Amino acid sequence: MTAWVHGFGGGVVSSDADKATLGGKGFNLAVMAGLGIPVPPGFTLTTDVCRHTIAHAGAYPDGVRAEVDAALRVVEAATGTRFGDAQNPLLVSVRSGAPISMPGMMDTVLNLGLNDTTVAALAAATGSPRFAWDCYRRFVAMYADVVLGVVAPDDHSASPFERLLEDARSHHGVDKDSDLPESALRELVTAYKAEVKTATGHAFPEDVTDQLWGAIGAVFRSWGNPRAETYRRINGISSAMGTAVTVQAMVFGNLGEDCATGVAFTRDPALGTRALYGEFLVNAQGEDVVAGIRTPESIDTLATVMPAAHAELTAVCARLEAHFGDMQDVEFTIQRGTLWMLQTRTGKRTARAMIKVAVDLVNEGVLDRAAAIRRIDPARLDEVLHPTIDPKARPKAIGKGLPASPGATIGRVVFSADDAQAWQAKGERVLLVRTETSPEDIHGMKAADGILTARGGMTSHAAVVARGMGKCCITGCSGLRVDGARQRMTLGDLTIKQGDTLTLDGSTGEVFLGAAPLIPAKVSGELAELMTWVDEVRRLRIRTNADTPTDAITARAFGAEGIGLCRTEHMFFQPERILAVRQMILAKDEAGRRAALVKILPMQRDDFAAIFRAMDGLPVTIRLLDPPLHEFLPHTDHDMAEVAAELGESIENLRATVVELTEANPMLGHRGCRLAITFPEIYEVQAQAIAEAAALVAAEGVVVHPEIMIPFVFTPKELARLRGQVAAVVDRVLGAAGATIPYLVGTMIELPRACLVADQIAHHADFFSFGTNDLTQTTFGLSRDDVASFLPTYLETDLIPSDPFVALDQEGVGQLIKIGVERGRATKPGLKVGICGEHGGEPSSIAFCHRIGLDYVSCSPFRVPIARVAAARAALDGGTP
Amino acid sequence: MTAWVHGFGGGVVSSDADKATLGGKGFNLAVMAGLGIPVPPGFTLTTDVCRHTIAHAGAYPDGVRAEVDAALRVVEAATGTRFGDAQNPLLVSVRSGAPISMPGMMDTVLNLGLNDTTVAALAAATGSPRFAWDCYRRFVAMYADVVLGVVAPDDHSASPFERLLEDARSHHGVDKDSDLPESALRELVTAYKAEVKTATGHAFPEDVTDQLWGAIGAVFRSWGNPRAETYRRINGISSAMGTAVTVQAMVFGNLGEDCATGVAFTRDPALGTRALYGEFLVNAQGEDVVAGIRTPESIDTLATVMPAAHAELTAVCARLEAHFGDMQDVEFTIQRGTLWMLQTRTGKRTARAMIKVAVDLVNEGVLDRAAAIRRIDPARLDEVLHPTIDPKARPKAIGKGLPASPGATIGRVVFSADDAQAWQAKGERVLLVRTETSPEDIHGMKAADGILTARGGMTSHAAVVARGMGKCCITGCSGLRVDGARQRMTLGDLTIKQGDTLTLDGSTGEVFLGAAPLIPAKVSGELAELMTWVDEVRRLRIRTNADTPTDAITARAFGAEGIGLCRTEHMFFQPERILAVRQMILAKDEAGRRAALVKILPMQRDDFAAIFRAMDGLPVTIRLLDPPLHEFLPHTDHDMAEVAAELGESIENLRATVVELTEANPMLGHRGCRLAITFPEIYEVQAQAIAEAAALVAAEGVVVHPEIMIPFVFTPKELARLRGQVAAVVDRVLGAAGATIPYLVGTMIELPRACLVADQIAHHADFFSFGTNDLTQTTFGLSRDDVASFLPTYLETDLIPSDPFVALDQEGVGQLIKIGVERGRATKPGLKVGICGEHGGEPSSIAFCHRIGLDYVSCSPFRVPIARVAAARAALDGGTP
Repeated sequence: MTAWVHGFGGGVVSSDADKATLGGKGFNLAVMAGLGIPVPPGFTLTTDVCRHTIAHAGAYPDGVRAEVDAALRVVEAATGTRFGDAQNPLLVSVRSGAPISMPGMMDTVLNLGLNDTTVAALAAATGSPRFAWDCYRRFVAMYADVVLGVVAPDDHSASPFERLLEDARSHHGVDKDSDLPESALRELVTAYKAEVKTATGHAFPEDVTDQLWGAIGAVFRSWGNPRAETYRRINGISSAMGTAVTVQAMVFGNLGEDCATGVAFTRDPALGTRALYGEFLVNAQGEDVVAGIRTPESIDTLATVMPAAHAELTAVCARLEAHFGDMQDVEFTIQRGTLWMLQTRTGKRTARAMIKVAVDLVNEGVLDRAAAIRRIDPARLDEVLHPTIDPKARPKAIGKGLPASPGATIGRVVFSADDAQAWQAKGERVLLVRTETSPEDIHGMKAADGILTARGGMTSHAAVVARGMGKCCITGCSGLRVDGARQRMTLGDLTIKQGDTLTLDGSTGEVFLGAAPLIPAKVSGELAELMTWVDEVRRLRIRTNADTPTDAITARAFGAEGIGLCRTEHMFFQPERILAVRQMILAKDEAGRRAALVKILPMQRDDFAAIFRAMDGLPVTIRLLDPPLHEFLPHTDHDMAEVAAELGESIENLRATVVELTEANPMLGHRGCRLAITFPEIYEVQAQAIAEAAALVAAEGVVVHPEIMIPFVFTPKELARLRGQVAAVVDRVLGAAGATIPYLVGTMIELPRACLVADQIAHHADFFSFGTNDLTQTTFGLSRDDVASFLPTYLETDLIPSDPFVALDQEGVGQLIKIGVERGRATKPGLKVGICGEHGGEPSSIAFCHRIGLDYVSCSPFRVPIARVAAARAALDGGTP
Repeated sequence: MTAWVHGFGGGVVSSDADKATLGGKGFNLAVMAGLGIPVPPGFTLTTDVCRHTIAHAGAYPDGVRAEVDAALRVVEAATGTRFGDAQNPLLVSVRSGAPISMPGMMDTVLNLGLNDTTVAALAAATGSPRFAWDCYRRFVAMYADVVLGVVAPDDHSASPFERLLEDARSHHGVDKDSDLPESALRELVTAYKAEVKTATGHAFPEDVTDQLWGAIGAVFRSWGNPRAETYRRINGISSAMGTAVTVQAMVFGNLGEDCATGVAFTRDPALGTRALYGEFLVNAQGEDVVAGIRTPESIDTLATVMPAAHAELTAVCARLEAHFGDMQDVEFTIQRGTLWMLQTRTGKRTARAMIKVAVDLVNEGVLDRAAAIRRIDPARLDEVLHPTIDPKARPKAIGKGLPASPGATIGRVVFSADDAQAWQAKGERVLLVRTETSPEDIHGMKAADGILTARGGMTSHAAVVARGMGKCCITGCSGLRVDGARQRMTLGDLTIKQGDTLTLDGSTGEVFLGAAPLIPAKVSGELAELMTWVDEVRRLRIRTNADTPTDAITARAFGAEGIGLCRTEHMFFQPERILAVRQMILAKDEAGRRAALVKILPMQRDDFAAIFRAMDGLPVTIRLLDPPLHEFLPHTDHDMAEVAAELGESIENLRATVVELTEANPMLGHRGCRLAITFPEIYEVQAQAIAEAAALVAAEGVVVHPEIMIPFVFTPKELARLRGQVAAVVDRVLGAAGATIPYLVGTMIELPRACLVADQIAHHADFFSFGTNDLTQTTFGLSRDDVASFLPTYLETDLIPSDPFVALDQEGVGQLIKIGVERGRATKPGLKVGICGEHGGEPSSIAFCHRIGLDYVSCSPFRVPIARVAAARAALDGGTP
């Protein structure tokens, strides 16, 4: 028979149920209890119960109640208390615990088991009536909120219980809740209960078993709340797994000055340094620490205040890290000098810490290299590859807060999550500035490049979530006042309005006015060490998409092993060339086009020579002209007049050409190799520039491997013809220069038809490079420029799992790529195959490329290290070939 | 050992070589000789020789010369003459003969073997020195033109030989060549030879063997001339097959009044009526008839002029038709009362004749029905399905010529082939008007809807080519004078300028000014009989694409078995609705959209009801709204102002909406089911209109089978959701009406991804309809609206075999369709699958649909009969499934 309920602590032999069944919190409590670490006894209702309630309209499976009763008896026995007892009552917490951590997303009820009878007993048992009534007051408010749904009338109002509390403070003339007298707390309980009666029509439940089942039901239900659903969507967590509910005997960090509560990381979650790191509050309950309302003290201070407890905590943490083989994030309470561990879980960390901890654990002998590589989420490397503020030109800071999540970023200030999302959708980089953040702000935090809050510590909501997302974040910024209603903030003497630009340095906590000078990230330290390991493991080569020598040099520094895509059109847009390009387009015949191309030739040759030099010894794939010619012409009346004057053309002729070249669907128009089918001279001159550049740098001693790529092919005949034309030019130029330079001519596979006839195309191609951007557009029938009006709805309503322009659609586009690879290699077994396009730097797409046997991926320079790690993880995960 | 040369006639046992080897002309001469029909003896150099010369830079295979010599000896023996003999010389013709007939496209040399010696012998042998010198003069000119390349300096000048001939006529004061005295002909030969010497630097060859090999070489080379290449491209003939060359003893139709030459069809090639049909000229050579210079007499006259020869010709024709089982096109010469057959071949005919001959041959017991169906080229049925002039409102003709190719057509007049092509490319329907046409006009004839010439008979170039192309054509129009240089024509008193509109009736030969009222074609007579046969054979169902009751009724009359595609957007464009559609688009929220949709609902319901009534008992597939909303909005400033006023909207708001909805690539944008994902109310209201219409007409006793089609799906989730929404509305409406009407909900498969995940989509679809237009666009990455700038180059330079928007690309798009069908049926074995899109009416595409096991094709109403025949031919040709 399946057990629906598993006990832990208090001498119970820990269950062998797994994390999927017990949830992360319940599982780890069971593990800690098994290790002999002090945990308050309790029991966990499994995720099976949750799934059962979802499938049965909230009804529990048969037998659950009996199992809960039995487990409760065990807890009573271990603690020497009884649930609802008038003498020695057991109080419990009821918490959610999903198999994958979702911090702050679901509900919790503390101090459950208090009623008008047991509160007196608690007062007697603890010797502190004020404490007992404070617990009772908190419990009623929390229960009413979480279980009974008594909440503020709208998002902008205070909850009724906060309002009553504020009335009490003002009535008693005190500033802090802790200064309220016992009588005030008693009155508050009465007032709270009256509020509940008014709001719900029912009296507050006095029966502790009713309380317990109410709380269990509410926590199970909270799995489906909108906050939690948003979090799961953002983090790719399945809604099917459900949450467990853990009921645990309460321990109190708020029984007096010999009590405390805190959270700790076994290593620094920002930097990864090996040292206990955390915060605590004396005489407080756990929620006080994470809520960010009181500013807590550093865990180092605990060594002074409660040295024994600090020493025990340090020992427990070391033991947990040894057991789990990873940095832990723990919650603890010290009740009258005794340490109780309430939770342990794998600690969230910055990417920098992720790298350092993984590398350190290898060097400490805890992990092997493969395990360390598996610990690296390649997508998160982006964070450490972000620029930092140039130390030589660092401006004066205008403010300083806690360095909650590192990296420097520049953005425009907004004051609400909705604004952040709206501005980001328009292409703006924004900084979300809030007094403090709450789970309702998740979508805005995701949209923002950086987060700045006035309150909260290093473990506040903003800090934890921002680190999880790899965003730069500064919390508890002194002197910051946020006036969201008027869309402005003040920091010291300065007033900053919505839309003003700030720079945040999440590594130091400093805030700067305007855009500070940034310098690119480097691969050094632990990251460099990690990179040597991943390079030993991976099979995929990593190239870069680079159109300029600067990009090429950057990418090479990040480990790029060649250029997978050098787009020649970007070179055409430079001011000194666009004139000649336009002359070419406006020419009436081939002779006119050739005359203009001759002017472009030396410039292109110099471009290619510089790139070849930067990539000395490595292959460089140059894509011949791809975009429709239209893109090079001006479109507004003003620009047309200017260009016509420059060219010495009539504006009518220019306008007529613009109209003639305008296309209904330029993405599917006269572009790619179609340009060279109608105007062969364009590719011929580009081939000449490539060959001349290759001969030039080869004479300087540079080792050059040009790979000429012909785009947008749908039939082998296009490639056969253009390959012949291009190779004839290259051979002629190299022959004339007396240079022997091996070169390749290949094609970009970016249309469904090209995948389907890849066997024939391969006869004429030395390599294939999948252009996954266009292939995604054509396979889905989706113009990347036009998705804004409907793709968000598709994502929000789960019609597609992710944006197919970000993560490769393996199910559809991936099938075509597999067909293309298989058929291409059926014709030419050794065919070199790669991908270029945004997907080349996205980890799940890279894993796919590994599995289907590509030779390389090509991505933007800053994503090269990400791709290297992703390729290594893919190799470790195996999969054909 | 392969024989390079095969003899025929003169007692030689006919070779068993096939048509591919001997060419059509050589093969049929051999067949005729074998049947004992009188043919002048001769021999054929095979197509193998041609291919050998192409592969070997013009060099002949070893042994050819010896074989030709031997064959020549046989001809000499049979005719009692000797080649080059001073007493009794053999004269021969040298003609091309490809395996597939290419009339007038390649070169011919007649009277070969004449020189200064043999001309005297010919004079003596025939007793007519004038005849001998006339032959010599013709031979020198023809040989100089065809073999030696002595031609006019440009296309607009007369050839040097024509010029000399004209000088001679004027010098001797005569109008006709036949009035020139023998002395003048002798002088002309001298002058011609001097012209050859001047132009080529060499004397005209006196040696008859040199003459023969010169002519053989020239005819082989003429296989590759541009005219022939154009013809092959238009007619889809492979350039690899090559031509044969037939050398045959000359017989003379120009030896006097007891001589004649002519061409005949065994049945009327325009109407198909069973009777000898043709033309002849007394005292003429064959080229005189087909060149259209002298207007020939009807073959019926031959019965009076030369009754014996006419009787023998009639008997020969009957024998040929019995042997070949099809209508023949023959050439004959009567030399001094004796009939000689020079050629027989399958006769080209109009589509009307094609149908009548095939049906008659079945009824005469010559063919079975399957063979008759195989004789029908379904693409050519278009001709008989063209409109005719309404007999009740027939205007007065302004001119009359020969009814050379039937059908009525309206177009704007142009006077050159280039103009015809240019105007047609701009979307104009044009009529090509010429004094007479020549092979150089082919591209213009292809571009024109109809052809009108001043000269030439029923077998002139214009007539033969037009019938082959299925174009309306009138030749020999009396009183027509064409002034191409001034771009005008006169017909009687009328002057007609380029761009003026005429109507041609190719069935009567009448010409009308302006646009005459046309009425649609009907399926009756032999066509109706044929249609009953094809319907017994075919397996594919034929539906139609119809958006209106009128189209539906037309299509049903043509045999449509349902509607495969009813586009609802066309209904939206009608003036009284577009206002409500625009209100919907401009609405700020769902309530506003619903308010506008409510106005459209009753109109759509009435549309659907009318279509359901027209298709009583047959299925009707209705596609829900597909185009981007943008298409319904005005775009010019003027139209925007007008529409803004109509709507009571500010022009700024309207303009802002237009800008907001403008897409970079609307074909890949917010359209199809994406509209309903973002605005579900659109499809809900359409579903309501369909269900209300169905209930309405069902109550009238109409049997209605609605099939609701959801377009542009790329993931099964779209279909699952929208199917649910649509079915909920339909069920609610039908339920409320108390109607039990079975209906289907399916999807259009028109994106590559939909084909790839068809197994999943099929779970939610009652049917698939492949939208091959959009599938072609996305598979090729080709916007149909933007191909004009490069697709012609692709077609002209053989990068693609045909326009993929006309004939389905079986190699690429076809693969995706096969994948879609196989996967869809793997999920749902009985899944109904069809195609809609232009390809549904194109024969090669229909054959493909049959082979891959589709249930139906859907095409435009006028193409339904074509589709029925194509489906039958596909069924006869077999193929899986």
